[in-house]
Amino acid sequence: MPRVVALSGGVGGAKLVSGLADLLDAQDLTVVVNTGDDFVHWGLHIAPDLDTVMYTLAGLANPVHGWGIDGDTFTALAMVERYGGEAWFRLGDRDLGTHVVRTQALAAGRTLTEVTASLCRALGVAPRLLPMSDGARRTMFDTATHGTLSFQEYFVKHRFEPAVRRVYFDGDPPPSAEALDAIAAADLVVICPSNPYVSVDPIVTLPGMREALARRPVIAVSPIVGGRAIKGSAAKLMVELGAGDPSAAGVARHYGGLLAALVVERGDAFEAPGLRVHATDTVMLTQGDRRSLAADVLALAGALAS
Amino acid sequence: MPRVVALSGGVGGAKLVSGLADLLDAQDLTVVVNTGDDFVHWGLHIAPDLDTVMYTLAGLANPVHGWGIDGDTFTALAMVERYGGEAWFRLGDRDLGTHVVRTQALAAGRTLTEVTASLCRALGVAPRLLPMSDGARRTMFDTATHGTLSFQEYFVKHRFEPAVRRVYFDGDPPPSAEALDAIAAADLVVICPSNPYVSVDPIVTLPGMREALARRPVIAVSPIVGGRAIKGSAAKLMVELGAGDPSAAGVARHYGGLLAALVVERGDAFEAPGLRVHATDTVMLTQGDRRSLAADVLALAGALAS
Repeated sequence: MPRVVALSGGVGGAKLVSGLADLLDAQDLTVVVNTGDDFVHWGLHIAPDLDTVMYTLAGLANPVHGWGIDGDTFTALAMVERYGGEAWFRLGDRDLGTHVVRTQALAAGRTLTEVTASLCRALGVAPRLLPMSDGARRTMFDTATHGTLSFQEYFVKHRFEPAVRRVYFDGDPPPSAEALDAIAAADLVVICPSNPYVSVDPIVTLPGMREALARRPVIAVSPIVGGRAIKGSAAKLMVELGAGDPSAAGVARHYGGLLAALVVERGDAFEAPGLRVHATDTVMLTQGDRRSLAADVLALAGALAS
Repeated sequence: MPRVVALSGGVGGAKLVSGLADLLDAQDLTVVVNTGDDFVHWGLHIAPDLDTVMYTLAGLANPVHGWGIDGDTFTALAMVERYGGEAWFRLGDRDLGTHVVRTQALAAGRTLTEVTASLCRALGVAPRLLPMSDGARRTMFDTATHGTLSFQEYFVKHRFEPAVRRVYFDGDPPPSAEALDAIAAADLVVICPSNPYVSVDPIVTLPGMREALARRPVIAVSPIVGGRAIKGSAAKLMVELGAGDPSAAGVARHYGGLLAALVVERGDAFEAPGLRVHATDTVMLTQGDRRSLAADVLALAGALAS
């Protein structure tokens, strides 16, 4: 089996990661996760994408939203609401336990990489989950109508409605050494069908990361299907940031020379010099869909290598 | 009605406070609460005695333990336990909401006095609850067998089993100005049947507090009944700290010249020069018991004044 590194954001990425985890030995799969959405809320360090991937692989994820823990309760939140406290971000009670333990461990001087490993161990998550960096990098949005917004303000508070003029990243920490090592040792890097602008770019634009990726075969899966984003703001951002009509071809242009191949939805295929475009079923509704898309990606990697 | 200031610790004190609240107009009752047990847990500022009094007056207190919120769930705690995190202090989910809001507000620069007022307002608690001080003062225990322990270590982790050689207070902040003003304006100060060593002494030994109290009529209610503490470590500490056999008379000696009168259980009466000792039913099992003891205390104050 190939050694695979997956670059992932939250919900969409976690689905493909879960398919890959079904097919690969745990020691052959490393997931490098976006932490540009991390934020402090209620004094707690929240890492939404790490948690989504972790809960998904632990079989705890809410199957409807994709984020949070299935069957979680919101008792603490109701009490905070009663006090007139900050209740716009819906933190579940079990989820809260994760943030408490993470925040405590970080305050005790452990790195996010170490903390993530220890949380994953406790939940029985076998593939390696790595934050993209142990340093802080925050995804920010310059908007036409609401000034500069943090990720959670843009995405949760304002439901990605304000038009975005620019996405930028506050902080240029080095990538995690463990992530760079895993990429250097990988037979394949998979860019999951996460939002290119807000989930993948924070990883890819870390200092030295693009160079590290350029040395490996990289396959991306397009999050744009039939001109629309399956979830979230990817399609809207493509238009607002001047990348043209949302399309799989636009995704390829965005990642540029990084890609050896792009997996797109049937009907979204296009021709591009030097890029292998593979059309298949990319919408993952069931665990079988996830596994089958993962198998397609691995088969494509095999074809590239031969 | 007299203007009353009650000095209170947690469970035992809250019961008498609740009786006083039934009898007095809200604007005539101020409760100055021990904060020597306050501590940081899960990164949150927890004020056990303030919360116990607040939840009791809000009608939310757990009627069995006296502390915590009735019917609270422990979902976040179970998750923290699953991660191998700190689970020795049993924090309920609703209770957690209180600590989150308090910690956030303190971090934003508000005083504990302000935060307490705002929490009480949200829960519909009408009498004024004041922390004894906005500064930090931590009750500490020199033990024979376990070195120096913080309050929660001594009380919760070690269930007040280690023999105590000395109780001391780490920090000498000024008393709350609001508390001093309320005492100066009070017709009566009631020392609730809280632990003299660990609940009342932290208040009374604040710089300038004893002098402020000396100018008002002070009535204490003995927490020692028939030679035993109704709850907690008061009787055990009396013996260990060399105050002799646990007794209401020992409580009177401990408070010394501060008291105009002491309310004791029937059968515990004793004679002491310059001290009025009033025997009645002091064990509060029902809300009626609380109200009736409060009425006794108020009647005794009336008798002292005439």
